[in-house]
Amino acid sequence: MPTRAAQKQATRRAVIDAALRLSAERGFSSLSLRGVAKEAGIAPTSFYRHFASMDELGLALVDEVGVSLRQLVREARRRVDKSGKGSVIRASIQTFLSYVEKNENLFRLLLGEGSSSPAHVRRAIGKEIQRFTEDLAEDLIREAEATDRPIAHIHHAAEAMVTVAFNLGAKSIDLPPEERLAVIERIIIEVRMIMRGAQAEAAQRG
Amino acid sequence: MPTRAAQKQATRRAVIDAALRLSAERGFSSLSLRGVAKEAGIAPTSFYRHFASMDELGLALVDEVGVSLRQLVREARRRVDKSGKGSVIRASIQTFLSYVEKNENLFRLLLGEGSSSPAHVRRAIGKEIQRFTEDLAEDLIREAEATDRPIAHIHHAAEAMVTVAFNLGAKSIDLPPEERLAVIERIIIEVRMIMRGAQAEAAQRG
Repeated sequence: MPTRAAQKQATRRAVIDAALRLSAERGFSSLSLRGVAKEAGIAPTSFYRHFASMDELGLALVDEVGVSLRQLVREARRRVDKSGKGSVIRASIQTFLSYVEKNENLFRLLLGEGSSSPAHVRRAIGKEIQRFTEDLAEDLIREAEATDRPIAHIHHAAEAMVTVAFNLGAKSIDLPPEERLAVIERIIIEVRMIMRGAQAEAAQRG
Repeated sequence: MPTRAAQKQATRRAVIDAALRLSAERGFSSLSLRGVAKEAGIAPTSFYRHFASMDELGLALVDEVGVSLRQLVREARRRVDKSGKGSVIRASIQTFLSYVEKNENLFRLLLGEGSSSPAHVRRAIGKEIQRFTEDLAEDLIREAEATDRPIAHIHHAAEAMVTVAFNLGAKSIDLPPEERLAVIERIIIEVRMIMRGAQAEAAQRG
């Protein structure tokens, strides 16, 4: 028999999964506490045992979406790690934007959709960019060592790459689908440019 | 005697100037139509001869702020145009961030503060970034010709630079003042990296 804590954890999980499903369909801002509780198969009053408010649930979802998106991108990066630099960049960006495309409403959570103020939006974006940056910096360090092509200012390079990819990616969800492919190519060109600049600086330093 | 059209134009200007003064002090989102009319020295009902709503006034202000910020940055760039690349980048970014620092509430307008939805925020940011990008691309083209150091993908380079500066700059206004200086240095390193990458690509192409 599961312990009470494990059961509570399982219900919390069910609420998050229900909210993710509904958010993916209709966007987080259209959800109601009652609707989420119903989808999760719990009484509306039980909701409060897990989250103080819909806002708090929203924060949990931002975290969930960020974690799974980062995991996906990292896996893509590792899969092609041996086939050269260019394709690592392309694989990361394609994976990122195909997630954005397929999970538009979930990605909007990372952009602070459903959040009350532009300052919150900025903070939500800032936090996600920082996490992506830390992941990417780690991968860049490993790649630089493996290929023996040093990169200067790795954390700055990673921050610039993620800032470009994230912001252009965010812009792409407001575009008609036929214009989105061009955005991928723009991001790839710009991220490669940053990579080259970081390598050129390292080469110059000797 | 001024024509009626000229007079209307002058009153519109007075309303915009009043709203800019009040926004700089307290932020656009705290303004009321009545307060703006009073500051401009017109009757509240006259407001509607110039703007259909506070939202429309807000759009006019976004434009004003964008234009003057771009002008400032361009002038800074031209002043140091002859003293070498590094300082052009530093001058642009320092001028940009010192404007942001001194006119925090006006800069917030560009970030969509007072706007109703995150999608509007993204669009406001996107539009401004595009205008800054066009300016910068022009300046980069001129510089590349003057210094005979060609730059590949000039529009992409400009877009990446402006995206980094604008988004890190936006993050800086949520930071305590003592941490803002470090942001300037980060932006400078990243923008230089993009510049170097764009030059390295041009050099490689031959």
